[in-house]
Amino acid sequence: MNGARSLVETLVAAGVDTCFANPGTSEMHFVAALDQHAGIRCVLGLQENVVTGMADGYYRIAGKPACTLLHCGPGLANGLANLHNARRARSGIVNIVGDQATYHRPHDPPLTADTEGFARGVSGWVRASMRSADVGRDAAAAVQAARSYPGQVATLILPADASWDEGGITAQPLPVPAAQPLDPHAVEQAARVLRAKGGKVLLLLAGAAVQAEGQALAWRIAQATGAQVLADFVNPKVARGRGRLQLERVPYKSELAMKALAGFEHIVLVNAKAPVGFFAYPGLPSIQYPPEAQLHVLSRPEQDALVALRALVEALHAPEAALPDPGPRPQPASGEPTSDKLAQTVAALMPEHAIVSDESVSYGRGFYKSSHVAPPHDWLHLAGGAIGDGLPVATGAAIAAGGQRRVIGLQADGSAMYSLQSLWTQAREKLPVTTILLNNRSYNILVGEYKGVGATPGPTAMRMLDLGDPGLSFVKLAEGMGVEAARATTMEECADLMRSSFGREGPFVIELMV
Amino acid sequence: MNGARSLVETLVAAGVDTCFANPGTSEMHFVAALDQHAGIRCVLGLQENVVTGMADGYYRIAGKPACTLLHCGPGLANGLANLHNARRARSGIVNIVGDQATYHRPHDPPLTADTEGFARGVSGWVRASMRSADVGRDAAAAVQAARSYPGQVATLILPADASWDEGGITAQPLPVPAAQPLDPHAVEQAARVLRAKGGKVLLLLAGAAVQAEGQALAWRIAQATGAQVLADFVNPKVARGRGRLQLERVPYKSELAMKALAGFEHIVLVNAKAPVGFFAYPGLPSIQYPPEAQLHVLSRPEQDALVALRALVEALHAPEAALPDPGPRPQPASGEPTSDKLAQTVAALMPEHAIVSDESVSYGRGFYKSSHVAPPHDWLHLAGGAIGDGLPVATGAAIAAGGQRRVIGLQADGSAMYSLQSLWTQAREKLPVTTILLNNRSYNILVGEYKGVGATPGPTAMRMLDLGDPGLSFVKLAEGMGVEAARATTMEECADLMRSSFGREGPFVIELMV
Repeated sequence: MNGARSLVETLVAAGVDTCFANPGTSEMHFVAALDQHAGIRCVLGLQENVVTGMADGYYRIAGKPACTLLHCGPGLANGLANLHNARRARSGIVNIVGDQATYHRPHDPPLTADTEGFARGVSGWVRASMRSADVGRDAAAAVQAARSYPGQVATLILPADASWDEGGITAQPLPVPAAQPLDPHAVEQAARVLRAKGGKVLLLLAGAAVQAEGQALAWRIAQATGAQVLADFVNPKVARGRGRLQLERVPYKSELAMKALAGFEHIVLVNAKAPVGFFAYPGLPSIQYPPEAQLHVLSRPEQDALVALRALVEALHAPEAALPDPGPRPQPASGEPTSDKLAQTVAALMPEHAIVSDESVSYGRGFYKSSHVAPPHDWLHLAGGAIGDGLPVATGAAIAAGGQRRVIGLQADGSAMYSLQSLWTQAREKLPVTTILLNNRSYNILVGEYKGVGATPGPTAMRMLDLGDPGLSFVKLAEGMGVEAARATTMEECADLMRSSFGREGPFVIELMV
Repeated sequence: MNGARSLVETLVAAGVDTCFANPGTSEMHFVAALDQHAGIRCVLGLQENVVTGMADGYYRIAGKPACTLLHCGPGLANGLANLHNARRARSGIVNIVGDQATYHRPHDPPLTADTEGFARGVSGWVRASMRSADVGRDAAAAVQAARSYPGQVATLILPADASWDEGGITAQPLPVPAAQPLDPHAVEQAARVLRAKGGKVLLLLAGAAVQAEGQALAWRIAQATGAQVLADFVNPKVARGRGRLQLERVPYKSELAMKALAGFEHIVLVNAKAPVGFFAYPGLPSIQYPPEAQLHVLSRPEQDALVALRALVEALHAPEAALPDPGPRPQPASGEPTSDKLAQTVAALMPEHAIVSDESVSYGRGFYKSSHVAPPHDWLHLAGGAIGDGLPVATGAAIAAGGQRRVIGLQADGSAMYSLQSLWTQAREKLPVTTILLNNRSYNILVGEYKGVGATPGPTAMRMLDLGDPGLSFVKLAEGMGVEAARATTMEECADLMRSSFGREGPFVIELMV
């Protein structure tokens, strides 16, 4: 068999059953090998950042890596921003990049680029497979690397001749790496602090700690000690809704974050990093917590937060504790759209076990408050700050859920334009995705940031932040890619469109004028 | 003044008067500084690959660099593919990337990435300006680097605090570097070969050699010696139409290229590289010229092809020679669209001094043959093979021409979807761009490539090359971004739409179903 065939067989044997692809000439043998193997579902994206973003969204829901298929260095380059987001989300991806044949590369034809150099900044693992006989072995190592706890981007570069040459050897799956053991004394130390200073302690959660079990354990600890609980501002996936904790996040704005963190003398980090500003601002410190507060690492991202929290519960003899009741489910809102009303309406109408892909940027910073009361659901955030992941993450999440869960995209307009091609894949794969497109005709976040850095916006500046000349019609853009769409200007219209779209099979775009 | 202000003043002093931008938080002070200075035109792009592609197109027409403004490592990453194309086109660009404040970066907030690492693969020059006092000096060096002959991407990384801190110092422009001197004996050697073996010699032209004067000089040499003349397959800009040489290119397909180059014993390279395949194919050699042919470098890309050709004309005492008459201008074609008919219709209707941005990919490989007879125009090719440059290059070229030249985009559908956001900038800036969108509902080039690598396409493979499920409506997509558009299914309809669009002020999209 050729190298490409050994790659496909190795991937399938290792449990990789989905390939997000935008192939070119150098990947044709891999595509041909996929033809001969029914074990992998192929999903085409019209641009590579859609492809890598889908792979990120897939991992967040499936909990196992998909592979990608990208074309040479420039194809990889197009997908780097969402690989950056995946790196920050600690998503496992087997990122396969076809490239010039080994003997052809020295001739430096036009598309030749520094593929490895591009890959390095976003990958935890990079390898180029130089011979067909190595491809299977390297693919098994790539899957293993992608699955290392909690997950990472593993980039396998595949020169065309390693793909088409005979001599491929299918490799058996390698063991899935376990999480790293907890640091000695970490649990003990956290317990001591919590016992002594409970009311002045913050439990800051991220990663597995913001899933349902982690939240329940953290709540027991909080109830037993008087500590408070917060989540990181960005989280790749948070379990939310009834039966989950009414978890709030460290606010985005540094002034608000500093206020929220002001009273704490100790911060216990559970897979979380110490809170710092997204950006620096003149006159504001980088860190958002009080400089005199002591940081205690209960678990690092490479360690299992649940093991740590269970041990902490035990050390504290923290009794079972019922989660607070969030109150009755609200009615859909009416009238002019606002951020709170949209969150309320989403909470009122969301089906059970929905997935929310939230790239609402500035408009959605307060969505949590009004959407706690929804049925149980997963909420996915933009983890790396590189806008353009909302639509592809929603698409990949829908693929991972096998069409069994409604995906709701809360999507700002400016960031939507980075990877709008995702809608075409949603139509092609008939995915149950409802995108609520928040059309405010501006890069509204930047209007706020502009003030934040102390600059005075004049006409040139304001024009750089304005998307209203000409106004974008997301209804036409969606229809141009085969997705049905309609515009809503009131919350009633929005609610009606949500209801009807939740009952359909395929994707739908609601352009909400805000 | 702050660092940002010193940057703007230094750029303006060095002749940079256009900024293609997609800014974020860390660039707000630069945007504010632009407000205080009327000397720079700011053009917003909705995604960074549009921004960098516009800067490439601008350089090809203006012959001097514009600057970009990108947001952090991931923003740069989004623009890398068209910086790759610009690198291959040898376009000068002052590529400005805002980044985390120097003291904030060690905290590793989410958007932090390896900005320098991403820049290195596409830039001839990279520098990070770490203090406001250095920004002016570094900006002057960046402009100088961008203008080094024949042009290159110079990336200046600007941490937010270097931008907002006081202490900025405006720098005077640095001298524009001259082309490197010719290699000793290069002219003499080429002359000797041409005298001895004229009929077996190919003059292979690229860079400045495919502009009008270079073509005329090459023609004199050919007439005097019996040598033949060809151009590289990809050229950033070729002077074409009446009064220019009926230059043909080395064909894309290796079989055809090898046939075209078979008879030559000597190849004289005039700013050109020895012809190699775009990709490797099993059973075909990498090089397209006969292995026994001798290569002679008359001038390298860093040397002035016109100086070299003039010296060669003199050495050969080659007399003045009239260029062949291309014959009468054709009528627009009728009936079902074909590649030849489209080229003929473009030749029939194109206004004087138009600019053609050609990303027609497989459909347009034969466009040259039928479009020689058009009025004088410039033809821009995809120089680096990374699809997605056609629309942004057209946009930047129109900006460079100050709205005085009609730009005609010959644009394949699959590649259009990589940077379609360009249309919004065309509408916003009211640019005279007519895009002929060739909708064949597939990645048609890959159907050919698939056969070329000897693979057998099955249903999975064919589905990876198909864009027809669902079909894209480029009329709706264009209208969604504020650009008027219409669909044509016959050459008559296409010709009518071309005529009417050439008379309008703003952009227009003709979706030609082929």
